[in-house]
Amino acid sequence: MWLHVSCQLNFEFEVPTSFILMLRPRSGAQQWIAREEYNISPTVPVTEFTDVYGNLCQRLVAPAGAFAISTAAEVKTPDLLDSAPGAAFVDVCNLPETVLNYLLPSRFCESDRFGSMALELTAGCLLGYDQVAAIENWLRANIEYIPGSSSVPISSIEVNARQSGVCRDLAHLGIALCRALSIPARMVVGYLHGLYPMDMHAWFEAFVGGRWYTFDATQNSEKCGYVAIGYGRDAADVALYTQFGPSAPPLQQVVSVSRL
Amino acid sequence: MWLHVSCQLNFEFEVPTSFILMLRPRSGAQQWIAREEYNISPTVPVTEFTDVYGNLCQRLVAPAGAFAISTAAEVKTPDLLDSAPGAAFVDVCNLPETVLNYLLPSRFCESDRFGSMALELTAGCLLGYDQVAAIENWLRANIEYIPGSSSVPISSIEVNARQSGVCRDLAHLGIALCRALSIPARMVVGYLHGLYPMDMHAWFEAFVGGRWYTFDATQNSEKCGYVAIGYGRDAADVALYTQFGPSAPPLQQVVSVSRL
Amino acid sequence: MWLHVSCQLNFEFEVPTSFILMLRPRSGAQQWIAREEYNISPTVPVTEFTDVYGNLCQRLVAPAGAFAISTAAEVKTPDLLDSAPGAAFVDVCNLPETVLNYLLPSRFCESDRFGSMALELTAGCLLGYDQVAAIENWLRANIEYIPGSSSVPISSIEVNARQSGVCRDLAHLGIALCRALSIPARMVVGYLHGLYPMDMHAWFEAFVGGRWYTFDATQNSEKCGYVAIGYGRDAADVALYTQFGPSAPPLQQVVSVSRL
Amino acid sequence: MWLHVSCQLNFEFEVPTSFILMLRPRSGAQQWIAREEYNISPTVPVTEFTDVYGNLCQRLVAPAGAFAISTAAEVKTPDLLDSAPGAAFVDVCNLPETVLNYLLPSRFCESDRFGSMALELTAGCLLGYDQVAAIENWLRANIEYIPGSSSVPISSIEVNARQSGVCRDLAHLGIALCRALSIPARMVVGYLHGLYPMDMHAWFEAFVGGRWYTFDATQNSEKCGYVAIGYGRDAADVALYTQFGPSAPPLQQVVSVSRL
Repeated sequence: MWLHVSCQLNFEFEVPTSFILMLRPRSGAQQWIAREEYNISPTVPVTEFTDVYGNLCQRLVAPAGAFAISTAAEVKTPDLLDSAPGAAFVDVCNLPETVLNYLLPSRFCESDRFGSMALELTAGCLLGYDQVAAIENWLRANIEYIPGSSSVPISSIEVNARQSGVCRDLAHLGIALCRALSIPARMVVGYLHGLYPMDMHAWFEAFVGGRWYTFDATQNSEKCGYVAIGYGRDAADVALYTQFGPSAPPLQQVVSVSRL
Repeated sequence: MWLHVSCQLNFEFEVPTSFILMLRPRSGAQQWIAREEYNISPTVPVTEFTDVYGNLCQRLVAPAGAFAISTAAEVKTPDLLDSAPGAAFVDVCNLPETVLNYLLPSRFCESDRFGSMALELTAGCLLGYDQVAAIENWLRANIEYIPGSSSVPISSIEVNARQSGVCRDLAHLGIALCRALSIPARMVVGYLHGLYPMDMHAWFEAFVGGRWYTFDATQNSEKCGYVAIGYGRDAADVALYTQFGPSAPPLQQVVSVSRL
Repeated sequence: MWLHVSCQLNFEFEVPTSFILMLRPRSGAQQWIAREEYNISPTVPVTEFTDVYGNLCQRLVAPAGAFAISTAAEVKTPDLLDSAPGAAFVDVCNLPETVLNYLLPSRFCESDRFGSMALELTAGCLLGYDQVAAIENWLRANIEYIPGSSSVPISSIEVNARQSGVCRDLAHLGIALCRALSIPARMVVGYLHGLYPMDMHAWFEAFVGGRWYTFDATQNSEKCGYVAIGYGRDAADVALYTQFGPSAPPLQQVVSVSRL
Repeated sequence: MWLHVSCQLNFEFEVPTSFILMLRPRSGAQQWIAREEYNISPTVPVTEFTDVYGNLCQRLVAPAGAFAISTAAEVKTPDLLDSAPGAAFVDVCNLPETVLNYLLPSRFCESDRFGSMALELTAGCLLGYDQVAAIENWLRANIEYIPGSSSVPISSIEVNARQSGVCRDLAHLGIALCRALSIPARMVVGYLHGLYPMDMHAWFEAFVGGRWYTFDATQNSEKCGYVAIGYGRDAADVALYTQFGPSAPPLQQVVSVSRL
């Protein structure tokens, strides 16, 4: 499936503001970026770097006044993302070094507090993929997905208490539960075709059977139309933009995803 | 100052247990490891790797039954760690890429919630080193340091509410406050000469004036006798040992530090 | 200066052929990629990765038969690349760790054999930038630049013996001479506006005064219109495409660079 | 097998001399460093870093006058290193990213010039381990191993012309032949128990069947008693010490290996 995705951000700053942006999708195992655009107005010097999770990030200082960023891409994604019921749990001693980082608790995923709950939710499951699928199903059934219901990110403990949340919140709780079972799990942000209302989306991946698989408790189980932009331990690592200094949320954030 | 440091851990496991250890100090800008020992009993295969923070970590599966780890080192440390009142704040756009990671909130350092408090505590300070020194002083004056007072790590929000904590807790709150000011800050665990009661110690570093400086609100301001073992965003990253599976804390943990 | 650059490669394979490609320019200190395209025909699965030099590379298996790759980008480049006569030599003990790799001899830059020659060519120069500028001038005066004169890469020793070569050859000799003086130097491949005959280009960078500067003995000293695609120790690291298996050079390679 | 290894280097410098050292073995899949010593006299500030190949390296400036380095370690090594006749060739598209670097030609391993020779030597072999074993056997039979016969490193082309060489030379030619077959191969330097005359040793590893295997054409086929210190593309990457400035070889280099 070929998708056209775009994101437009408009800011208005009172003072020059330092920014780290994460808006450039990379070609990877499950997506190919055939065409890409990245415009900034007014033009300022930008430095690009790769963060510890492999994301392409940009640093810049936005001047006072109006500041606009617009990005777009044409991406080939699979018609159906891989799933693998039965894929085995990988013992910590056999995990690739690069995924060990995703076993630890993080800002919004307090996996150290979810041990018993995770065991309970997955009781009777084959270790591995089926545990994660059980977590995904439990989230779908028990945490109400209400797009737009939170502004500031809340942590998995808070999500579990509220029993509802935005996509990011369900992902955080899913990640915390996986890690509590010693299954590496990471946050993904990006685009999703057909999302309503259209916006940036967040989901999670779990490492079982020797590779990463996609899970998303906010959608039905058929997984397609995902375009990943950033990977990290949780929302703290994969903010599309991080401002330093006085907070000034975008006046406008317009996201679009359409089939080519 | 030449120090001899050692750490002995004794476990008793009911089932084979996967472990990640972080017990090998590395030579660095402020310490030189002239001699080192690392023994495991019974002998099992061990894989060593470098994590994303540059720490040397070991992976192994401890068998059921008694399991002992003993490490020791002879280390040259400075007579006095560097301090630099007046060292300048480094704007985000000029920070080295490798420290950007330490600006983000993490499991035990919810810096996203400490913006106003950090500004208040450091009002009137020169931006940079002096802000961090003010935070350190505030912690010393306001958060009671009670060695042994907590077992499970608690986060900076909880520490701030309790107004007391162990070394790790004071470090977490210090880190959260620094990051809230866009100053990169990281957790360090290791040995400290003269610590009473003797145990592993935790402190923090802040990046100002182009390099990392050591801060420790649990001690007087003269800084010496520190031997770093691990660096990370917070205690989640720098656990001396991380067990996977049923928790079984060490029966015994003996730490020693003496002058050579 | 805004440039439109493109590269089209056409192959004809008798058997399926493994490939590593390096055709995707990255935004960096001196260039901003505002728009980019990357097409492969027929479509095959592609994996993208970042190599040890920070280059974005693609792996794929081209099927038997016709195979085409076309890439294009719109890039903002400086009107004039920085130069810095007098910029100081950085002693090895003060170099950033990430550049140490560029001090060592490599496949096509046998810097271990150029010690006396490098000292001779730069006698009387201020250590640092001026030594590199003297090397660049010496190359311009003594090694004849003959585009298209070699097909297989030859090494700096061979270039020095022949006294002529393509852009890659002059860069290799320049790099070897810099490294012989303990100045880190690296190869860059990419596009150059106004190059005649138009083709991919190669030049080199030297690390003096705390950063990388661009040198190119095949052109006049005014440096502008460069778009870097890949960085490495020498041509072995920065091949636009590396084939594994029976060699089958492209039937056609069309490169274009124009002002927007 | 437990080994005690040590290396003592004595220099005499006329001027302060910058150094990069690689003398600290790391625990890895096939060896465990239980005890280690590293002494420098006179004492100077040392910075340790990890290079792109994962080696622990030290940077320092040796003062004018006598300068001594002594290192020692107690190491557990396997009684017999793994061998795996029949282990399969891994196609480039399936190799781990981290080994791709070892497919490219390097300073002393001009693999780009050994295509036909490598095919000829391994004609009829199963692709993979057996090809490397055939190369090792060919080296053993055709390149005379003469310890101490060369001082300056020479490249695989020169080794092949001379038909004799030191351990490093045989390794270089072996590596070049492997890479010419698209088999990743790397240089290893370290200690070897029973080597006569005792000195530092060099051998090579090839990546087949999904992991690295050890090869050494200077010894009989039973492989044991190896302690690796450094890994790299060739001798340029794994020098035990690299001096910058006027060359001053060690007055004395004493190496010892004994069973514990």
